[in-house]
Amino acid sequence: MRFRARLHVRFGDIDHAGIVYYPRFLHYFHVALEEFFGRQLGRPYHRFLDDERVGLPTVRLEIDFRSPLRFGDEIDVEVGVREVGRTSIDWIYRVFKQDGVLAAEARIVTVALDMEHFEKTPVPEWLRNALLAYRGAEGME
Amino acid sequence: MRFRARLHVRFGDIDHAGIVYYPRFLHYFHVALEEFFGRQLGRPYHRFLDDERVGLPTVRLEIDFRSPLRFGDEIDVEVGVREVGRTSIDWIYRVFKQDGVLAAEARIVTVALDMEHFEKTPVPEWLRNALLAYRGAEGME
Amino acid sequence: MRFRARLHVRFGDIDHAGIVYYPRFLHYFHVALEEFFGRQLGRPYHRFLDDERVGLPTVRLEIDFRSPLRFGDEIDVEVGVREVGRTSIDWIYRVFKQDGVLAAEARIVTVALDMEHFEKTPVPEWLRNALLAYRGAEGME
Amino acid sequence: MRFRARLHVRFGDIDHAGIVYYPRFLHYFHVALEEFFGRQLGRPYHRFLDDERVGLPTVRLEIDFRSPLRFGDEIDVEVGVREVGRTSIDWIYRVFKQDGVLAAEARIVTVALDMEHFEKTPVPEWLRNALLAYRGAEGME
Repeated sequence: MRFRARLHVRFGDIDHAGIVYYPRFLHYFHVALEEFFGRQLGRPYHRFLDDERVGLPTVRLEIDFRSPLRFGDEIDVEVGVREVGRTSIDWIYRVFKQDGVLAAEARIVTVALDMEHFEKTPVPEWLRNALLAYRGAEGME
Repeated sequence: MRFRARLHVRFGDIDHAGIVYYPRFLHYFHVALEEFFGRQLGRPYHRFLDDERVGLPTVRLEIDFRSPLRFGDEIDVEVGVREVGRTSIDWIYRVFKQDGVLAAEARIVTVALDMEHFEKTPVPEWLRNALLAYRGAEGME
Repeated sequence: MRFRARLHVRFGDIDHAGIVYYPRFLHYFHVALEEFFGRQLGRPYHRFLDDERVGLPTVRLEIDFRSPLRFGDEIDVEVGVREVGRTSIDWIYRVFKQDGVLAAEARIVTVALDMEHFEKTPVPEWLRNALLAYRGAEGME
Repeated sequence: MRFRARLHVRFGDIDHAGIVYYPRFLHYFHVALEEFFGRQLGRPYHRFLDDERVGLPTVRLEIDFRSPLRFGDEIDVEVGVREVGRTSIDWIYRVFKQDGVLAAEARIVTVALDMEHFEKTPVPEWLRNALLAYRGAEGME
């Protein structure tokens, strides 16, 4: 199972080459993650961070850019889960254009971090259980 | 007296129209302010914020955009002071291109804010005294 | 009549002071403008720009910041029209938080620009007519 | 041989967790690349793009984030070259904090793209020759 967030490429996302500035893809991934928590897991990401005092900083990412995005593109950013470790989560993201063309795919590893001490902490139980449903084998294998 | 910070228009600052995305001007102003504190006042802005627990959020701004900026432009962002009130500072910013052409000018009012309680607080005495030297009558009058 | 776009304050919109970095307000305004063209005027902004080769760069803006925004806030960005001149449009923007509190209000003047020659051009007739319905007297007066 | 660009973590680079928003690292890489072209190769990146009509979009990247960055950090962004293919360049980037701690390291593959037709094109001869001096074996191996 995968979650998809519909986003729009904005006027200001474009760079001097006329396509989406590549750091914006990472912003799209994060926005999709925020939507995933709020709309899918029923727990807005800011509440998760502020109430449980756990953060999910990225420790590793790999991205393959397949096709450029342009202003006006409507995109679907797919969020999936490869694996849930004791203190880490291994995510898969894919970006599709409105015509179904794959624009980018990424693997992102985040760790659960106790935000008081900036130290690794176990992935909260509710989150681990919720994420298992999104775990899948497709993509980037 | 005015302070000038030399900045570069970056590849990612550009929008779909091929010129600097207008919110970036405000980022340039803030970067110039950070340089002003660190290099001119001898007190890095992050130390000011974190040690004195005072912030300087913007409560009002006016900008006139005179000439577009493009990727590769070298710009001088000028920081000046119009007035220092009890709890507010009235700044002037001007952006010049390498050929001396005025690209934008702005008036920005910030208030001194106690960051614990998000309440107005007097402008710290050292800052008030330091800023008086930069007060001037030119520009946007 | 006013148009309202519902936006979300994102994790990455926040600055070191824990509130929305003030240039992001201008980005919110632009996103609302893009939504206004696409959803309200029935003419996606990228088509307007690319087909008619007319841009709407900002030549002047004034903003009053009334209340800070934080990560997780849902905001309504209201787009209104004060006046439509021969070559310029005078917009009003207001940002409301989910509890109805006014976070910011702005007046933004854009000019119609022939994107081939970067010269002023009359506001296209269809746009002028469409905008008249949104013209109103309230706000920032 | 490696090139190093000194950059500053800015007030607006910070996210809700109080550390640098991770897409900003990619922006730092790109800024370092721009500095590398202008100051090291003697050919400002905007001239390269606009005169030769060749772009260098990223097609793949891998990043390991080792240590978070905070507002006020001075960083050195190191640019190196792993390999120069016929139409691609394989770059290495490393970010060091002022105390020498490695904050991030990345491998980025760019392709040379004819910007008229958005098609792969050979890496320009002058660039290939210039880059060979920066090729090295250290890091991420």
